[in-house]
Amino acid sequence: MIKAAIIAIGDELLIGETINTNSAWLGKELTALGITVNSSIIISDNKDSIINSILQLAEINNIIITTGGLGPTKDDITKKAVATYFGVDFTEDTFTRKHLVEYFSRRGKAITELHFEQALLPSCSSALINSVGTAPGIYTFLNDKLYFNLPGVPREMKSIFEDNIINIINDYKSNQNEDYFVYKTIYTTGIVESEIAKRISYLDDENESIKFAYLPSYSGVRLRLGVLNSELEANSNLIYDIENMIYKHLETHIIEEGKPILEAFQEYFLKNNWTISVAESCTGGGLGSLLTELSGSSKILEGGFIVYSNKAKKELLNVKESTLAEFGAVSEETAIELAYNCRLKMQTDFAISITGIAGPNGGTDEKPIGTVWIGVSDSKETKATKFVFLKNREANRELSKYTALSMLYRKLKYNI
Amino acid sequence: MIKAAIIAIGDELLIGETINTNSAWLGKELTALGITVNSSIIISDNKDSIINSILQLAEINNIIITTGGLGPTKDDITKKAVATYFGVDFTEDTFTRKHLVEYFSRRGKAITELHFEQALLPSCSSALINSVGTAPGIYTFLNDKLYFNLPGVPREMKSIFEDNIINIINDYKSNQNEDYFVYKTIYTTGIVESEIAKRISYLDDENESIKFAYLPSYSGVRLRLGVLNSELEANSNLIYDIENMIYKHLETHIIEEGKPILEAFQEYFLKNNWTISVAESCTGGGLGSLLTELSGSSKILEGGFIVYSNKAKKELLNVKESTLAEFGAVSEETAIELAYNCRLKMQTDFAISITGIAGPNGGTDEKPIGTVWIGVSDSKETKATKFVFLKNREANRELSKYTALSMLYRKLKYNI
Repeated sequence: MIKAAIIAIGDELLIGETINTNSAWLGKELTALGITVNSSIIISDNKDSIINSILQLAEINNIIITTGGLGPTKDDITKKAVATYFGVDFTEDTFTRKHLVEYFSRRGKAITELHFEQALLPSCSSALINSVGTAPGIYTFLNDKLYFNLPGVPREMKSIFEDNIINIINDYKSNQNEDYFVYKTIYTTGIVESEIAKRISYLDDENESIKFAYLPSYSGVRLRLGVLNSELEANSNLIYDIENMIYKHLETHIIEEGKPILEAFQEYFLKNNWTISVAESCTGGGLGSLLTELSGSSKILEGGFIVYSNKAKKELLNVKESTLAEFGAVSEETAIELAYNCRLKMQTDFAISITGIAGPNGGTDEKPIGTVWIGVSDSKETKATKFVFLKNREANRELSKYTALSMLYRKLKYNI
Repeated sequence: MIKAAIIAIGDELLIGETINTNSAWLGKELTALGITVNSSIIISDNKDSIINSILQLAEINNIIITTGGLGPTKDDITKKAVATYFGVDFTEDTFTRKHLVEYFSRRGKAITELHFEQALLPSCSSALINSVGTAPGIYTFLNDKLYFNLPGVPREMKSIFEDNIINIINDYKSNQNEDYFVYKTIYTTGIVESEIAKRISYLDDENESIKFAYLPSYSGVRLRLGVLNSELEANSNLIYDIENMIYKHLETHIIEEGKPILEAFQEYFLKNNWTISVAESCTGGGLGSLLTELSGSSKILEGGFIVYSNKAKKELLNVKESTLAEFGAVSEETAIELAYNCRLKMQTDFAISITGIAGPNGGTDEKPIGTVWIGVSDSKETKATKFVFLKNREANRELSKYTALSMLYRKLKYNI
């Protein structure tokens, strides 16, 4: 197997002031490339720590990636540590110098000597272009191992990885005798991990050469099938058959676009020129916020209503006093009135309503914490469905949002 | 110094399917307790990896904390690794057994032998009570070092840490000759890190015995003053003076409640029985969602409007056609009409409006990406303020939300 180690550099990560999302992102990307992520550590902004960690991890890994400590401030000592580790001096990279001059002139800012220091690289290394910032990534190939040093700013780290490193690793893979995994991901929606396992785990049990992984998150469960590159050809029919069986067993829970539900939902709506509006109680605007996360959302979301109080439900969306008195704010009837009236007021093709008990207070025996009614309205019908999620406020709000998207997506795609 | 190492156990963390928030949380808590977090690593679900990591990190640390691998499933091998590491067998903890029986009977669920395995602990260890789940934490004191093994579920991990470990570490600190830091945190709002540094960095330069840290996030910058416990008494007057100087220099940017802005905002509104409503364009409901994150928010947020399209701005909140035509949707005039009409429609004490260009598209020379107008309305006046944030959609949306809270909070507290 080709093995990788990730080293995140920064005191702010050790003391928890910043959550280390870089290492998770890199772990995911490397795994998708078939690389086995073997170690992931956080270390202090300290030259000796950096050198010792690289030394130790390079013994057992093919690929070493560091993040952090590449900017022009005095704290940023990764480059010095790397040069010491390789026992080399610095050489100016002319391409990076040119890039820096252009970067600053385009922004109308003055460039200083401090900035030009970013063009100095360890003599045995090359620059990896950073199209969204000033600090280039550093790439060193030595003794059949790959070393990458990336900035800590997530946007820059990701951009350098995507623009440069994926190709380098793919080349490396094809030149190595080491085996690696090739993956196929299937996105699902509106179905929990245990139910997926119930339906398809026999496929996992029966096929040892295919590695199954269930990857749950609030937005849905991804299924990943892995096969060793060396066994890919021999198993191509098998993989094809397994995929078909999975599609058959999970049917309306498959996201056809092969993307997370939010992306798929937006793409599907854009393709059909559909519009949507929202009426939110317990999510307080979270569904609208989610639906506007991606660029281009203004073509699908018209707007909506945050109807947190009963007064707001009545005055903004004409929920009847008698409905609230008889059935309560968290009820099928209220969810239906909210969705129906929202769609009429907003003149959209669809409307979604969410009303529930997020917790930690407000639960009863009849309507425990986690009870959420989600309504969906279009020109033909308005329906609401009841869910009982969890005991946790944050989880209930997240699950409500993604379940709402899932409901409407599956209704439209699969007519359910 | 008293040093700690954090070991997060789990393949899902290595491959980035789960972001390692536990280690960040623990890093923050330990730092707050004055402990120096020295190492933070992620390792595989593997007995040898666990044993080797503990062995290696116990050499240079006083406190070793692991998270993950304590549940009843076959993957959960932390406990076995710990027993092997200490060279001991398992003993049943009667208190934990009793807790398990109660836990399941309260939920009306059947308890199985598999569950009782959770009461088996390494013979040299004690159980740490888990009030929100079934797996107890494990605590071992050996050769003057503290070892803690916690479940990976964040809620359970946190609960065990807060209920048990803080006290154990505080006791340990008082019995050690090793020194540690004592911290004081000051919460600020509506001011960036560089501006804070400009005003107070001379205090940092002049006082070597006090360690300054600037901790920025979307919700605001926290300032942390640290002093060594052994020097606390000698410096108590100095710390008092520095604090006063900081309050003086940052004046209206101090959060008096000594809490993050959302908590402080809600507390302040609850104390005054004030209500609020929101009118959101580029944040799409995100401010409403933020304002309903904490339990108790229903007493302050009435509801609001998601006015993403111009049509929604006109129809839901009566923004004048001429205003949109003459000044555009992202303008002082539109922000004012939105906030004013929102407050009137919702009959709340206050209303906030947000309209801006989140990006990545839609920017012009005159109104670049990141331009956001935030309006605030109360019975006396309605005003809007312009901000130019960043180039990044997510950052612009987050900053808009927190800046809106900050504006209204500071207006009310400090009359600005």
